[in-house]
Amino acid sequence: MKEKELWNLFQSMTLAEKLGQMTQTTGEYFVGKEFAEELVVTGPAMEEMGFDSENIHRVGSVLGVSSSQAINAVQRAYLEKSRLGIPLMFMHDAIHGYRTIFPIPLALASTFNTKLIEKVGHLTGQELVATGIKVNFSPMVDLVRDARWGRVMESFGEDSILSGRLGRAMIEGYQGSADGTIGKQNVIACLKHFVAYGAPDGGRDYASVDMSKKELFGFYAKSFEIALMAFPRMVMASFNSFNGEPVTASSYLLEEVLRQKFTFTDLLISDWGAVSELKNHGIAANDKEAGYLALNAGIEIEMVSNTFLKYGEEYLSRKPSLIEKINQAVWDFLNLKNEFGLFEHPYVDENEEQKVIRSKKIVNAACEISEASCVLLKNENDLLPLKKEDTLLIIGPFAKTQDLLGNWNCKGKAAETISVEQGFKNLASNVHAYKYLDEVPEELLEKSDNVLVTIGERWDKSGEGHSSVDLEIDTAQQSLIYDLKAMGKKVIGLGFSGRPMALGAVIDDLDALLWTWYLGNEAGNAIANLILGIKSPTGRLAMSFPRVSAQVPLRYNELGSGRPANDSTYSSRYQDLPIGPLFPFGYGLRYGRVKIAKVELSSSVISDDNPLNISLELTNNSEYDTSESIILFMEDSISKIVRPVRELIDFQCIALKKGENRKVEFVVQTSDLAYINNEEKKVFENGTINFYINDLNKKVANVEVQNRREGIYK
Amino acid sequence: MKEKELWNLFQSMTLAEKLGQMTQTTGEYFVGKEFAEELVVTGPAMEEMGFDSENIHRVGSVLGVSSSQAINAVQRAYLEKSRLGIPLMFMHDAIHGYRTIFPIPLALASTFNTKLIEKVGHLTGQELVATGIKVNFSPMVDLVRDARWGRVMESFGEDSILSGRLGRAMIEGYQGSADGTIGKQNVIACLKHFVAYGAPDGGRDYASVDMSKKELFGFYAKSFEIALMAFPRMVMASFNSFNGEPVTASSYLLEEVLRQKFTFTDLLISDWGAVSELKNHGIAANDKEAGYLALNAGIEIEMVSNTFLKYGEEYLSRKPSLIEKINQAVWDFLNLKNEFGLFEHPYVDENEEQKVIRSKKIVNAACEISEASCVLLKNENDLLPLKKEDTLLIIGPFAKTQDLLGNWNCKGKAAETISVEQGFKNLASNVHAYKYLDEVPEELLEKSDNVLVTIGERWDKSGEGHSSVDLEIDTAQQSLIYDLKAMGKKVIGLGFSGRPMALGAVIDDLDALLWTWYLGNEAGNAIANLILGIKSPTGRLAMSFPRVSAQVPLRYNELGSGRPANDSTYSSRYQDLPIGPLFPFGYGLRYGRVKIAKVELSSSVISDDNPLNISLELTNNSEYDTSESIILFMEDSISKIVRPVRELIDFQCIALKKGENRKVEFVVQTSDLAYINNEEKKVFENGTINFYINDLNKKVANVEVQNRREGIYK
Repeated sequence: MKEKELWNLFQSMTLAEKLGQMTQTTGEYFVGKEFAEELVVTGPAMEEMGFDSENIHRVGSVLGVSSSQAINAVQRAYLEKSRLGIPLMFMHDAIHGYRTIFPIPLALASTFNTKLIEKVGHLTGQELVATGIKVNFSPMVDLVRDARWGRVMESFGEDSILSGRLGRAMIEGYQGSADGTIGKQNVIACLKHFVAYGAPDGGRDYASVDMSKKELFGFYAKSFEIALMAFPRMVMASFNSFNGEPVTASSYLLEEVLRQKFTFTDLLISDWGAVSELKNHGIAANDKEAGYLALNAGIEIEMVSNTFLKYGEEYLSRKPSLIEKINQAVWDFLNLKNEFGLFEHPYVDENEEQKVIRSKKIVNAACEISEASCVLLKNENDLLPLKKEDTLLIIGPFAKTQDLLGNWNCKGKAAETISVEQGFKNLASNVHAYKYLDEVPEELLEKSDNVLVTIGERWDKSGEGHSSVDLEIDTAQQSLIYDLKAMGKKVIGLGFSGRPMALGAVIDDLDALLWTWYLGNEAGNAIANLILGIKSPTGRLAMSFPRVSAQVPLRYNELGSGRPANDSTYSSRYQDLPIGPLFPFGYGLRYGRVKIAKVELSSSVISDDNPLNISLELTNNSEYDTSESIILFMEDSISKIVRPVRELIDFQCIALKKGENRKVEFVVQTSDLAYINNEEKKVFENGTINFYINDLNKKVANVEVQNRREGIYK
Repeated sequence: MKEKELWNLFQSMTLAEKLGQMTQTTGEYFVGKEFAEELVVTGPAMEEMGFDSENIHRVGSVLGVSSSQAINAVQRAYLEKSRLGIPLMFMHDAIHGYRTIFPIPLALASTFNTKLIEKVGHLTGQELVATGIKVNFSPMVDLVRDARWGRVMESFGEDSILSGRLGRAMIEGYQGSADGTIGKQNVIACLKHFVAYGAPDGGRDYASVDMSKKELFGFYAKSFEIALMAFPRMVMASFNSFNGEPVTASSYLLEEVLRQKFTFTDLLISDWGAVSELKNHGIAANDKEAGYLALNAGIEIEMVSNTFLKYGEEYLSRKPSLIEKINQAVWDFLNLKNEFGLFEHPYVDENEEQKVIRSKKIVNAACEISEASCVLLKNENDLLPLKKEDTLLIIGPFAKTQDLLGNWNCKGKAAETISVEQGFKNLASNVHAYKYLDEVPEELLEKSDNVLVTIGERWDKSGEGHSSVDLEIDTAQQSLIYDLKAMGKKVIGLGFSGRPMALGAVIDDLDALLWTWYLGNEAGNAIANLILGIKSPTGRLAMSFPRVSAQVPLRYNELGSGRPANDSTYSSRYQDLPIGPLFPFGYGLRYGRVKIAKVELSSSVISDDNPLNISLELTNNSEYDTSESIILFMEDSISKIVRPVRELIDFQCIALKKGENRKVEFVVQTSDLAYINNEEKKVFENGTINFYINDLNKKVANVEVQNRREGIYK
């Protein structure tokens, strides 16, 4: 549609029709029970929502409808009764794949590989487009330090630069561009959840969040600031309150920070029911007040509650200037629909879906990405890889199951998922899988020197709402390990979870341990490829693993202390636990060695005008064509305020052929060394900066910052 | 000394002598090994501290020397070589008693009784004065919500009004007045630790603290704001950093908040070594910078590090105006010494000590206060009290031990402590105590229907530096309970700890449970008095008890949520744990019933000019002369920001004779209903306020606030 035509359409809209565009519902109101299976989510009853046959045909978008057939049916039913015939836009939660399921985001983060993450976004987008879905509620870049939080599985972990950059890459993958332009063969990324949702009190989902502005801008908002550089065309406001202000009603966070400070100019959507839930937060007496607060704060699409449409007219009579917000939101949304050619092509080609969905290209990519997402946490005496010819005995709750998709598995099917058993059987002939130890024939057990044990927690123990206090593997799994160890077996753990688990009780009894998270459809193939040495593990943890459940929150970048943890009683540690996490952020082993050598700085000083080059030489001494993630950490020796003990400032994932030698370069600006102070200013100061690569405890270089730090005497 | 004379003395001081007054050391530099036992704490070697025979005789105060003899010896050695003969002032950490040990502060808080807390302060002060100690580093009003923090034992729990008022009462007890005047027979209270020390990251002592200003002023600083109303003559700065600023170097917290906002005008001391530890925080390159930052921020006495004396001259050459801070500090300190008549009487009467220490009056008070500190958490079918004539079988690690003083036990002696066994034997004849179950003769076990089991954690598992992840009783204790239960016994738990413990695993197998914390010297007597029904328990928890270790932090006054905890997956809870704490703040049972009736409001509305009277009628239907703590909670139904689900606004502890009926009245001002917003302003708004008494879940009344709340449409 030409802009002039669109403008005429816009001008012809009634207020109710405009408010309708700002309202999002689920799909069952249009198609009834016919497509029950295709409705991934459904909302409250129509009456309860305040919808009738008239106003329901004014809403602007629908979420959670899958399959091209169902989407066309909803669109048809809607357009038949809609006065102006503005097509619905369909949105979805394809968090790690739509029908082809990729590893959960916390696993994806372990790749430290923006290219792979971009690919996940791109391929997921292909399946969505073929289905008729135009907006994906992804990526989520909520920073998280507390493994109790259920949505940790959806996160990219505990570092804001890593989270932000992976989010940015995923957005570019979805949208097919780096500048926010959307091709008709791409989907819109909805970056979420703005902001600080990952820091609820006690790790309990939906609990209140409290922190300083320094912490907000230095960490929790920083991942958004970075991801926004890819121009996601939509942002979702988060459920939580921040320092007492529910984000959904916070002009400060939505207008001042997101719009003005971070210069976001596209559409802002609420989370599910979040507008109406302002009542529960205790800041609105009823739905009418709730909607006013959200609209006034800048929410442009209300997801699954119905206050804008119901009370919008009254809001305007109270505050006429709100019409500007409404017009802006509706005009933007119409333009977005038009960018996709929705007016000309409201329906999707139902033949396309089957061609694209689970194409070989997508499934193969899922396997490759799954391999890169696993983290080898232990490998005593190079026990791994095993040989195809070995007796491969696999025991435990995840040995035979196809339930390896992880939560938020969208339209993924367990039946299309490669179990661990199947993965090994695809490569080897001497494979035996059992759920329980006592099912294993004695003779088989006898002759198996190595035993693979599958441990972890069920996929549905993490995910939205699924906060847990118990981060340890259950006692049956512990016993399985202890029993096998007592028999003199080499015990090789395969870990499955949607969060970091607390493995302090069993780690000493495991000879090797590969953490596989939930990898999605190709889980078994990827795991077998790694265990049997077809590929080398390359993943690194994006989140620290605690020793016991109560050792959370936890993060590598904690602030310094006046009494840093040491052997003394009077130091910052738990007296009944060794210092630090069981496995820190960035930890990950591989088969063979990629050597880091010749770390060199271009200068011994850095200043605003003279950035620093840090170069190093990588040599792939392993037997694999592989990749290596290089993480550059800094330590600021002296600052005006207390800084993190280590901070990630850059990372690269470098592909290396067997035997290959490559020079890697980082360019460090003074702004990379800067921090946000309590006046919300970015500052950097003179002093010595120490650098660390991959190992948090081994300093590799240092540089002097020559800058404008005031002296200590002020 | 007359003021004129004092002024002349002050005028005659060299800069080094002034800086010396601002320096505090331990006592061993003056008396060597002769009084080793009397030196409760000792510092680093003299050389390491940068002291020599000259400058050591300029320091102004000494901490940690006990006994009048040792104090006189130190004073004598000092004055012999001091040029001006300004006597040392002696300071100490008598946290819950000096030689007579009272219950730990977290236990004291369970009394909800300001009069008893004042008494603890007064009596502790008597023992200190008799010993020659003039300043006590107490009370601590650091708010704490995380039971992992070791210093939780020293705190008054999770509510700021309770902590603040008990702190205020204790200060009045120490200082002997409500207005800051100090009699010669009293001691100076040093209120600590300013501020937010109780909120370290992960509950790890000394870890960094981050929170909003709203949280600071609404909670963590509020307890100080209240306690400061008793005019403590000294305040101690805390170890922690706050939003990146170590408090010891924070002009914002020390000058702007403590001095200007809270109008504190007396002496400000650092914590032990905290000035020098600014290096570890990473904000000072060396001791010289550290001292400058602390002096500049307002620290007036440097405890056990030596930067002021060493570098003060250089600081002044850099910033001459610092002389004003130095002069003010020294002049104030000289005046304080003079208020005590220290110039005329630098020595203490060594005969006095033995008359006062552990006098009958003090010991009896300790017993009374210990009884009031215990909290009855469970009493199925009114199993308790037991009878004197019963077979009293007591088992477990705390049955026979005299180690019941708790941490920070100062000069208390285990040998002077009444064990549980001894306490019962003082009242009954059929008493049998064993550490282990298998020591109990079979016949005795057979005939004992009820068994008292002592559970908990050793006294030295809590206290400074003693942060722990494991809050559960050990497996041996769990087995003891399970085994006895399996034998069909009624199992009565007696709990010992310096923190809330996680009792989820055993609570169902306990028929009764009395939490006794660490009660000090009179522990056994108090416990026996309660268990045998000489007195009724009256204590209430000042801190919530979690179900499992990983359910922390925890507090009754958490903020509301958009999705409050309920049976749904999508609500703010842990999915693997029942909702809420095992025992909430304010919980506590008694023998028999004190009935609350006729809760009446003086009006259905409240406004600035018309405070509200809430009256109720208490009837003591129990068989005891006793007391009842009445806690008044509010719930603000609708506010502009998210409020706590419940908030304590007032409490009273009411003495009641058996059968007595009393009317109790609370006066509620609108300011009691107000809150601190993000602009650091105290605001109160129109709306409905609900009131709760003692039971957090049973609304007893509500009132309309008629005030100046803006409408929702702004």
